[in-house]
Amino acid sequence: MTAAPVLAGPVEIIGTGLLGTSVALACRRAGLEVLLSDLDADHVRTATGLGAGRPRRPEDRPQLVVVAVPPDHLGEVIASALSAGDGVVTDVGSIKEIPALAVAGLPGAERYAGSHPMAGNERSGPLAASATLFDGRPWAITPHAASSPDAVELVRALAEVCGGVVAEMTPAEHDRAVARISHVPHLMAALTAGRLAGAPAEHLALSGQGVRDVTRVAGGDPDLYSQIVGGNATAVAELLGELRAEIDTLLAALTEGDRTSIEAILRRGNAGTTAIPAKHGGPIRPMASVFVAVPDAPGGLARLFADAGEIGVNIEDVRIDHDPGRQVGIVEVVVDAAAADGLVAALGSRGWASHS
Amino acid sequence: MTAAPVLAGPVEIIGTGLLGTSVALACRRAGLEVLLSDLDADHVRTATGLGAGRPRRPEDRPQLVVVAVPPDHLGEVIASALSAGDGVVTDVGSIKEIPALAVAGLPGAERYAGSHPMAGNERSGPLAASATLFDGRPWAITPHAASSPDAVELVRALAEVCGGVVAEMTPAEHDRAVARISHVPHLMAALTAGRLAGAPAEHLALSGQGVRDVTRVAGGDPDLYSQIVGGNATAVAELLGELRAEIDTLLAALTEGDRTSIEAILRRGNAGTTAIPAKHGGPIRPMASVFVAVPDAPGGLARLFADAGEIGVNIEDVRIDHDPGRQVGIVEVVVDAAAADGLVAALGSRGWASHS
Repeated sequence: MTAAPVLAGPVEIIGTGLLGTSVALACRRAGLEVLLSDLDADHVRTATGLGAGRPRRPEDRPQLVVVAVPPDHLGEVIASALSAGDGVVTDVGSIKEIPALAVAGLPGAERYAGSHPMAGNERSGPLAASATLFDGRPWAITPHAASSPDAVELVRALAEVCGGVVAEMTPAEHDRAVARISHVPHLMAALTAGRLAGAPAEHLALSGQGVRDVTRVAGGDPDLYSQIVGGNATAVAELLGELRAEIDTLLAALTEGDRTSIEAILRRGNAGTTAIPAKHGGPIRPMASVFVAVPDAPGGLARLFADAGEIGVNIEDVRIDHDPGRQVGIVEVVVDAAAADGLVAALGSRGWASHS
Repeated sequence: MTAAPVLAGPVEIIGTGLLGTSVALACRRAGLEVLLSDLDADHVRTATGLGAGRPRRPEDRPQLVVVAVPPDHLGEVIASALSAGDGVVTDVGSIKEIPALAVAGLPGAERYAGSHPMAGNERSGPLAASATLFDGRPWAITPHAASSPDAVELVRALAEVCGGVVAEMTPAEHDRAVARISHVPHLMAALTAGRLAGAPAEHLALSGQGVRDVTRVAGGDPDLYSQIVGGNATAVAELLGELRAEIDTLLAALTEGDRTSIEAILRRGNAGTTAIPAKHGGPIRPMASVFVAVPDAPGGLARLFADAGEIGVNIEDVRIDHDPGRQVGIVEVVVDAAAADGLVAALGSRGWASHS
């Protein structure tokens, strides 16, 4: 048995956008030498200026190449990286089966193992990059059939240097997983948001936090997401087909006044919301929301959280409700259900108007 | 021209669940006498104990009756309230055309005008009630053709006493509006969440904040939402039919590799996210997110917001990212885009790891 390979660098980053430059910064944070390549020389200059590394030179011999280009170009750039040197090659793209198929059979294919950090896809450009982008985020590693164990271990070392939480699976399994937990939810958000475009202003004025939450991810880059969705067409289409069938069931139930079918779909949705793993992957504890009126000015939230901190309640989540009519925000603070009533009472004694 | 009627009380609340008891508490806050009725005597006792009013007696003569019962019972309870006295009657249900049709033609129909505060539908019971539940929330008032101006003005006075931001529209217009900005988004969230129920744990482990946002409202009460959706079947079905057609377009585009059609749907979603009115109804200002690593312990958020407060940046929104692997939370702080870089720098000088 040989020892696991040590990530010693240099690490080459091909594509110095948000993800590539963030990986570069995380590698630099770990003291690794980083080499930067991009078709856009401005991006390399910007990333270099951020301390993400130095431009790659022809004589460089990277130990690990990280391909961070748009989904449509993954296969060709990975293949070219494999033929250009003898280092391990990975990528950080949102789809994994198409690049794996593009590489299979090529000389050096054993030196490739794909990966996908679950972070940052809504933003772009090296200026948005950060060494902390991947801290605590899931990071899928997707060996193909021919990937060597050493290549997989080196990619795992990269994910760990970046602070990611590694999950290993096949490229096909990854693509089915992200279709369900990312691509199809994105499309459903986009379709829902699409019904708002051009709607009467007086209808939109009734919008609450719910529709804002449902549609938020639809603000992502359409060009990038069309590459992602188009590159995972089979898995996405399978789920979308199921959803179309459920919509047909719903439409029939609405026409016939069949409440049982409507309620069954709503109950399944209920079950789905609790299927998402809890924070820290632990068992799901019952949570409760406390709603607090907070003056919408610098310092208002600070005072609230200072008081909550002194009260000693751990805040699991926070939402600020956007109110259309006044300069007071309603802040929803999510805490352990057992702590909610005590928090309301303690906040009240400190002068906050709140309810659970 | 006569003077607008003054809301002087007594106000009767029929149905002392979350909404009814919250309206009662807001009326008490304004010094009005409040009379409580509910089929569930326990609820009346609880609401009375909370200071929401006193049980209604047969000889009471309310100036205004507020019907706060589940959607399926609105018509019958409103009709009964109209025949039981000569006060104005309103309701706070999520659907408005069915109750308006149930009342039209009845003696006293001119004394009814519907209303719908956009708050609190995900929770239930008098213990969850609060006088501040409606502060700053949209509150639709939906006169029917025969509603008298005095009835409408008295309902408007109630909404204002509760702190709501009034929008007046017809019942049919209201139902079309909430189908678009509430009921259909709820169904889309439930359908998306439904695909997560029973999914493999290793797929769900890749979940990020996006799918949590898209599916959050699907945690609402299935019985209540089946009444709401079933009671707004026509408007909901019309939009769902449009969405099914778009899914057909998407499925065809995925099969044919037609990126243009995929991207067109994503672009329309993009436009929809910006159609939702900005906070305070003002013009949309460009916002940016700053991501901060915060120890997941009481006091961590307090220190962050204390520092942000001292830096003097107004926080527009906050999201806490649930990380499956470690005891550090990533907190997303949304601020004016122009303030983001300064905030990152200032946080850095105070020892916070953050990026914009």
